[in-house]
Amino acid sequence: MIYYQVSIFSFVLLLVTDITSLIYAADQKSVDIHLEPPYQADRSSIRPSISHAQKKPKPKFAQKMHLISSCNGSYVKTNGTTCGLKEIMIGRCYEYQYMKYQLFLTNQSNVKNCTQLYQAFESAVRYKPYCNMNMSTYEKYFQLALSGVHVINRAMFWSGTYGVTHAYSADGANYITLEDTLAAAMANGLVWCGNENHTDGFDFFSCPNNCKDNRWADLAFWGLASKTFAQLAAGEIYVVLNGSHANDRPAFRNNSYFSDFELPNFRRTGEYRVTKINILLLHSPDKNVTEKCGEKSLVQLENLILAQGFQYACKDDPEELILIMCGNQWKARECQIARHVLRQAWDKKLYGTSLSKRNSHSFLLVCLTALAEIFFLVKF
Amino acid sequence: MIYYQVSIFSFVLLLVTDITSLIYAADQKSVDIHLEPPYQADRSSIRPSISHAQKKPKPKFAQKMHLISSCNGSYVKTNGTTCGLKEIMIGRCYEYQYMKYQLFLTNQSNVKNCTQLYQAFESAVRYKPYCNMNMSTYEKYFQLALSGVHVINRAMFWSGTYGVTHAYSADGANYITLEDTLAAAMANGLVWCGNENHTDGFDFFSCPNNCKDNRWADLAFWGLASKTFAQLAAGEIYVVLNGSHANDRPAFRNNSYFSDFELPNFRRTGEYRVTKINILLLHSPDKNVTEKCGEKSLVQLENLILAQGFQYACKDDPEELILIMCGNQWKARECQIARHVLRQAWDKKLYGTSLSKRNSHSFLLVCLTALAEIFFLVKF
Repeated sequence: MIYYQVSIFSFVLLLVTDITSLIYAADQKSVDIHLEPPYQADRSSIRPSISHAQKKPKPKFAQKMHLISSCNGSYVKTNGTTCGLKEIMIGRCYEYQYMKYQLFLTNQSNVKNCTQLYQAFESAVRYKPYCNMNMSTYEKYFQLALSGVHVINRAMFWSGTYGVTHAYSADGANYITLEDTLAAAMANGLVWCGNENHTDGFDFFSCPNNCKDNRWADLAFWGLASKTFAQLAAGEIYVVLNGSHANDRPAFRNNSYFSDFELPNFRRTGEYRVTKINILLLHSPDKNVTEKCGEKSLVQLENLILAQGFQYACKDDPEELILIMCGNQWKARECQIARHVLRQAWDKKLYGTSLSKRNSHSFLLVCLTALAEIFFLVKF
Repeated sequence: MIYYQVSIFSFVLLLVTDITSLIYAADQKSVDIHLEPPYQADRSSIRPSISHAQKKPKPKFAQKMHLISSCNGSYVKTNGTTCGLKEIMIGRCYEYQYMKYQLFLTNQSNVKNCTQLYQAFESAVRYKPYCNMNMSTYEKYFQLALSGVHVINRAMFWSGTYGVTHAYSADGANYITLEDTLAAAMANGLVWCGNENHTDGFDFFSCPNNCKDNRWADLAFWGLASKTFAQLAAGEIYVVLNGSHANDRPAFRNNSYFSDFELPNFRRTGEYRVTKINILLLHSPDKNVTEKCGEKSLVQLENLILAQGFQYACKDDPEELILIMCGNQWKARECQIARHVLRQAWDKKLYGTSLSKRNSHSFLLVCLTALAEIFFLVKF
């Protein structure tokens, strides 16, 4: 009887109110302080795309293209080699080894010589015509940088989820991504290309976007980086995929770095073999769900993984990652109610009541909406 | 009448259930994937403390102390100068100018010479006895690094809120903190001290923690950095303070960097004067509220600000920052319900119903608890 009354009461309230009022209510500011919207941290990729027309690796802060070409302070907008390439790479190498990841990835007899490492990189590219590269161009560099490293139960791969994955992996504190390894960290976001005719041996004015008939020119570095990282991964590994791509683009697709360089290179035998592959499938706020675990390309991926003898698990939107997504997209529809609920929780913390005046009306609506749904599900 | 019934019904439910069941319910994982807890990004400070016994600046990744002393690959745990200090600072300078902040802080005729900048730093400290420093030791360095820079309406200061503030400022994309300026970014997290007797001119084995009778030895760099940054701030500025310090330590206190170096140095006149100071007062999840806006040290701060002719505003826990705090502390009591609500929102997105079976019971409890509170507030 009482159930029935609650149900009717809720339904009537639903009819006479508009859920959008809730969203506007959440936008109100109680104090006259204007804050910037959160920064959209999710960038699609720093690696060149493979399946679409071959592109150069994008700088990590691509929207702020460096405008200096000749690196002497005169400004001409270019897409050439990053000014200070050498200094940046060597500095990152020291910082990585002596500050950040000392205890993560290297053991005590495994300190790399940063100058030697940069020279291995430079000798692969400087004074070399860009389009002559191949898969083994950077082999010595990766061997030097990653020898003796194993990433056990903490390797995290990503495809179409760069920003969220890196926010969650937290610079290697939670998980270790490709970009948290020394070899990739030194080059992440940089642009470079050799030029046999330039006095510097690098082209600071323009790096070609693709080399006709040689896909390896663009893949050489990040392809080998991905392959090498996959070979270092051991135990359980994690793969963060995007299940809300536009235009029905699948979460797992052939010609992706993951399918071409990572999946085929996981170790299947030995002490450092991969045992289980955990897929974390994300669906972005304000985007449609294209695929869920157990659907479409995820079925294809599961079959590939099982055929290679690994265990497989897939989870849609782990809560830890939902909060990160909402943290980057405050205004998204799916995040509004949580934002509201957090305001409630902090009001209770601050004022000793869970329902401040300005919020109680809309929170009530959320609850009654939910209640109405439950009871209608039960009744009909 | 129906109000009354809902009220009684809710109250009975409250009596027979335990809110902790909700928290445990939220912890359940539907799929067998174990994920790491989010990384605790909030570190208390990278600057040396002033009011407590003088301490050295801590490396940003202090928990992973660098173990290499002589920087040749042999391992002796030290608290001396960071290995690769020079390379790290020069590399960061290039990265800052040519990759990250090109369009933020410098105008097109304002590219700094990174080697010259490092030399200004080095000449202040190399071969110099550490305890002889004073407030003007690094003056030339800061002049070189920050000349021509103004931070208008986007300067963000922090005290006791390093991690949250930096997550929110987003590397300068939302707001600009001291650590987002070139001068501070080059040195952030590094340890250094000169040694007149060492061949390198730096002491790589041990940097003193304090110098008797000379508080400037420890304050020289970060004190001047804070002062200089305050002088660059214009328009509306933001200050993120911690209202949930342990042991009744106030949010605003004398002898803090903010009170000693920042507040006295905001410009009061001219084109680049500060007009308004916005205080964002945070209360961490799972911590008690020590002070709110309009209480205790915030009153003292308001008076100081108004006396200097600036406008003042204070806001407790802006929602943008609550989500960041909860993103770092998933398991905190105040964050559980939001986590739950987000799960609901994503279940609806994925499965077309806002209430998956496993969550409906506990969500119902939240709502009924809230309803009961409302009606009890109304009735009594």
